[in-house]
Amino acid sequence: MDVSPFNPGALRSEPPEFSRSELGLANRNSGALLELLDADITPTGTHYLLTHFDVPLIDADAHMLDFAGAFDTPFRLSMAEIMALPAISRAVTLECAGNGRAGMHPRPVSMPWMHEAVGTSEWTGTQLAPLIARAGPRAGVLDFAFIGADTGFDKGVPHPFGRSLTPQQLAELDVMLVWGMNGAPLLPQHGAPLRLIVPGWYGMASVKWLTRIEALEHFYQGFQQVQTYRFRQHEDDPGEPVTSIQVRSLMKPPGVPDWFTRTRWLRPGPVRLSGRAWSGGGVPIARVEVLLDGQWADATLRPRPDIYAWTSWQIDWAATSGMHVLVCRATDANGNSQPMSPPHNLGGFANTAPQRVQVHVAEA
Amino acid sequence: MDVSPFNPGALRSEPPEFSRSELGLANRNSGALLELLDADITPTGTHYLLTHFDVPLIDADAHMLDFAGAFDTPFRLSMAEIMALPAISRAVTLECAGNGRAGMHPRPVSMPWMHEAVGTSEWTGTQLAPLIARAGPRAGVLDFAFIGADTGFDKGVPHPFGRSLTPQQLAELDVMLVWGMNGAPLLPQHGAPLRLIVPGWYGMASVKWLTRIEALEHFYQGFQQVQTYRFRQHEDDPGEPVTSIQVRSLMKPPGVPDWFTRTRWLRPGPVRLSGRAWSGGGVPIARVEVLLDGQWADATLRPRPDIYAWTSWQIDWAATSGMHVLVCRATDANGNSQPMSPPHNLGGFANTAPQRVQVHVAEA
Repeated sequence: MDVSPFNPGALRSEPPEFSRSELGLANRNSGALLELLDADITPTGTHYLLTHFDVPLIDADAHMLDFAGAFDTPFRLSMAEIMALPAISRAVTLECAGNGRAGMHPRPVSMPWMHEAVGTSEWTGTQLAPLIARAGPRAGVLDFAFIGADTGFDKGVPHPFGRSLTPQQLAELDVMLVWGMNGAPLLPQHGAPLRLIVPGWYGMASVKWLTRIEALEHFYQGFQQVQTYRFRQHEDDPGEPVTSIQVRSLMKPPGVPDWFTRTRWLRPGPVRLSGRAWSGGGVPIARVEVLLDGQWADATLRPRPDIYAWTSWQIDWAATSGMHVLVCRATDANGNSQPMSPPHNLGGFANTAPQRVQVHVAEA
Repeated sequence: MDVSPFNPGALRSEPPEFSRSELGLANRNSGALLELLDADITPTGTHYLLTHFDVPLIDADAHMLDFAGAFDTPFRLSMAEIMALPAISRAVTLECAGNGRAGMHPRPVSMPWMHEAVGTSEWTGTQLAPLIARAGPRAGVLDFAFIGADTGFDKGVPHPFGRSLTPQQLAELDVMLVWGMNGAPLLPQHGAPLRLIVPGWYGMASVKWLTRIEALEHFYQGFQQVQTYRFRQHEDDPGEPVTSIQVRSLMKPPGVPDWFTRTRWLRPGPVRLSGRAWSGGGVPIARVEVLLDGQWADATLRPRPDIYAWTSWQIDWAATSGMHVLVCRATDANGNSQPMSPPHNLGGFANTAPQRVQVHVAEA
């Protein structure tokens, strides 16, 4: 395959790799636009979207959130009651656990994200913990299940989208019940009228269209909790659950694109490269390195808007004529880095192998 | 390939068809969510997006629109001046000319839309014609070019995104200069701060991030006008230009989906099917037929919100256990229908072959 940008037409003969169902998911689910990475808050309508089933349209006036199961004083709240609670707004970076899946070899077959399943919004809502305390979980409670209004089938199994968190996880995480996004009401496709935001964890934990919180005296066995979102090495491996976001960085592609291949074109001379880096659990980014002309160079970091939001980085590059592949990699304050070859897993989760941006710099 | 929804796991072995560059475009560009087709106005953030190059972030306060070239009195307008002009709002259905491309055989290689590149917004702006008249096109003007701020390469050719309309087309079309969408400011990815809306035409005519309107005493030769968006049968065929939207219909998929294949599952019994139909040039929809149990049946049509917006249709079906493929096809008031096998063209434009919705109805 000829990958010279002098002959981009040749790229149109690249071999097929993705099936029709994968393409259907890619058409339905939306990735971020990497050229907008300079914005602290991802512009509304460009935040990534991964919808397992169908987006339900829910009447907010009639919507109730049930606190059910092993609570001493279970109750239901209307949206008006929830929105009368003390409100907080915070910038939180969400990322799909499957981000990077399309770069795995062999590639697990599901939504084939390249690098674009990430975004940062300002989420407005209320803290969940005081409501759980008010409902009074019984002493034997082991898990809290969060059930969405969206239902469907996966591998032949019908189920609503549901996830759980243990009492200890709830105590450690700043979980929010959210009704607003970027200063406006939550949009239907982002979970209106009410969703969970679990800051620092991959997006599957932030259940959309939330209808019910159930206290359980056993561990929740929902499909999305036990049959997927686990790091499994083989079919019989129960695997470890996918939880916190792993450290990753992205570059805003410099110059201008070729429409079809997205290869970048730019002129020789100084160019400021920029991008984002983030990790899970509120852990700050310690370092972003960028591979420029065969050498790793340290980028400058800027403070993040919230401990759960991404960090901005930048670095200057003297672009010289010819082909270049720009690579960035981040390290967090716990010393975790993006591995060049992350360990494989069956579900295709958390492939944090660095993004590679192919750039063609014109003759002087 | 086993397509039985009783064994959806088997579908994960379907053969690869799409290349990495096609998948990259599918991840970047967003399709509508068909489950939201009941809404007259597509919820903000779920309208389809096809961006040739990068989305530019433009400072609205500094943005100017130039009326340049063969005008007697060329001028520039600020956004404040444009937004002080008489405002109109209308619901307009936009569709990408490449919608349906992924269903063509052989498949032209570009953004591989299935059926989801359509949406309806309420666009707020002002009529373009009075401004053109004010600038005073010279007698020899043959074409008006509309140039966006977005630039890049296609087939090795650098160019800004630009399109043109002739004086006669401008006189016949209700072209708008638009700064608002669904009651809010235009979003960056939809062309902020200013875009064209050419009602009734495929989306390529509705230039986003509009910076310049140039009166020409020749026909505009921009890449997006002459080298693409044409119905070409072979490489040497200049082809006819892609203009008005061709008649098409879509069904809101009934029941609930399988996550991966999007095959639908539902229970036996009465089910109301619904969807949308639209054509170009303000031509109304005369008929929508739905293939139910081997017979075409007429759906009920409802009035559309604007002559340039889609029509809603519905029909009741008695779903019986087993596999079904539901098909809808529309006919407009000019007698144009969706052909089961539309004529092929090199660019993959206007493939209006009917959508086929695979439905599994459970045992009673």
